[in-house]
Amino acid sequence: MGKRITIAETADWLSARDNFLILTHRRPDGDTVGCAGALAQGLREAGKTACVLFNPETTPRYSRFVEEYWTLDGYEPEHVITVDTASYDLFPKNGDGYIGNISLGIDHHPSNSLYADLTCLDDTSAACGEIIYEILIALNGSVSPRSAECLYAAVSTDTGCFAFANTTAKTLRTAALLVEAGASNRKLNRLLFRTKTRSRIRIEGMINSGLEFYFDGAVAIAVITREMMESTKADEDDIDDIASMPGSVKGVLAGITIRELTSTHDCKISVRTSPQVDAHSISERFGGGGHPMAAGFTLDKPVEEVKETILEALKDFIPVAGG
Amino acid sequence: MGKRITIAETADWLSARDNFLILTHRRPDGDTVGCAGALAQGLREAGKTACVLFNPETTPRYSRFVEEYWTLDGYEPEHVITVDTASYDLFPKNGDGYIGNISLGIDHHPSNSLYADLTCLDDTSAACGEIIYEILIALNGSVSPRSAECLYAAVSTDTGCFAFANTTAKTLRTAALLVEAGASNRKLNRLLFRTKTRSRIRIEGMINSGLEFYFDGAVAIAVITREMMESTKADEDDIDDIASMPGSVKGVLAGITIRELTSTHDCKISVRTSPQVDAHSISERFGGGGHPMAAGFTLDKPVEEVKETILEALKDFIPVAGG
Repeated sequence: MGKRITIAETADWLSARDNFLILTHRRPDGDTVGCAGALAQGLREAGKTACVLFNPETTPRYSRFVEEYWTLDGYEPEHVITVDTASYDLFPKNGDGYIGNISLGIDHHPSNSLYADLTCLDDTSAACGEIIYEILIALNGSVSPRSAECLYAAVSTDTGCFAFANTTAKTLRTAALLVEAGASNRKLNRLLFRTKTRSRIRIEGMINSGLEFYFDGAVAIAVITREMMESTKADEDDIDDIASMPGSVKGVLAGITIRELTSTHDCKISVRTSPQVDAHSISERFGGGGHPMAAGFTLDKPVEEVKETILEALKDFIPVAGG
Repeated sequence: MGKRITIAETADWLSARDNFLILTHRRPDGDTVGCAGALAQGLREAGKTACVLFNPETTPRYSRFVEEYWTLDGYEPEHVITVDTASYDLFPKNGDGYIGNISLGIDHHPSNSLYADLTCLDDTSAACGEIIYEILIALNGSVSPRSAECLYAAVSTDTGCFAFANTTAKTLRTAALLVEAGASNRKLNRLLFRTKTRSRIRIEGMINSGLEFYFDGAVAIAVITREMMESTKADEDDIDDIASMPGSVKGVLAGITIRELTSTHDCKISVRTSPQVDAHSISERFGGGGHPMAAGFTLDKPVEEVKETILEALKDFIPVAGG
């Protein structure tokens, strides 16, 4: 198990070294991608060589924040850094070769396994982007417009544009500082939150019509089948963040989204909960994990069986009225 | 036309007087209600008598922020204040008696007609709540948890939880300060943004299915009929902020929402635009107004005629591709 270090120690460590490679996590979201882009940019501004390992799962929605930093052929890094990546399980497939060889992990997941030699972990941050912001300030004294843009993407996407329960005063203040540093929140919000494709609108409608309620309305289950994806021509970006939908219905304490993946019996399950229900514990029972109110896991079963399995397990987690 | 005064002058003016009555605007939103509650609370904390005129149109979603300050029978105010109210047209019906007799208007609408004797107007604020925050700081040195809660409701609802184009660094910083002052953004976001009734989900689905696109997809029109409201059992709170939906479709520059009101030929039209299109000018042509990207008006015609009338007018406002 590696050693934990502070923001200031992390900045000092980066300052004393060179030739970095940054890894994003599997199924990359705005936080990991924005952090990688901002850190690469900030390190370059500090006179360092820094690249991001190409992650083939990066979607068009987020690639603009990182693609200019993708590793060039023949780059031989001296130090490998992960951002927003809690464990080896979450490494991208082409990152497996770096397992056991991570110099620095920067993360905000309480479940971080401290797999890196050094880990800068702050689980009070809503987004890993808040930590990268502080590191860049410690390293360079300021954050450039380009880094600010990447970090705004990181912080805003991980908090549902500041609406999720993880948002703190620090999150909002960091966002204010990023806007002042040159991030166009107007442009970025429009891109990341306020623009829906017609496919997104169609698949949202299908998911909403199909919502099922259990436990007297305390549990809502949404299903996204491959057929729904195909008929609405929806892509990965179109269903980004859709996991928050079932949990948003009044009275729902646990919102479960079951996503049928490309192979036949392979479902990704997202769990979003109110404070009364621990999403991480539910997911942990199935070999997954995450945060107290947002976690996930995968099950190798058909959708209907997944649903039954989860409903059976939820009996242990959903408070019974009057119980 | 009244005189404009600064934040500091407004605080001094309030400090030197007593016995205030605060008016909210017609069809009250979170900003006017939150401002009224916060100002009444802050004035009471400063040792003053302050009440809010009962506004019968206040919906359950927002009444919690203001109901404890409703005027008691027989209250005789010395000074009447309006918050977030650009003109007499927007006075609540039971506020007509105060026309011509407003001592102080506090507002952020550029279209404010300066009808009050004194007006504290800052049209760079996304929400009037940002201005009330500064006034209360100038008046009391701090903001109490109760005022902070009301102001968080004001600022967050007027910016779509910080996603709308009006959100600035100051908005985000004010929100951070309000959370630090005791507003539970977690509780309030859940209440105001993250909880949808089943009726809301049903009517959203109907509106999305019925979206119509014109001008090569640059204009989207949503219609909310009385029949849709009845069949989904939706109430006013369920369609709060629904006007932002048509404008959120990719490629749409102007999103128009036509709401059929209770009387037969009476439609409320909301206009939400991208920076390229001026929502205020469009609305002004029909006797309405508002902000550059969010405005509205009413028309006394059946829905289909309203649609034709607007589409005809939009020819003058929508940039033609290559034109």
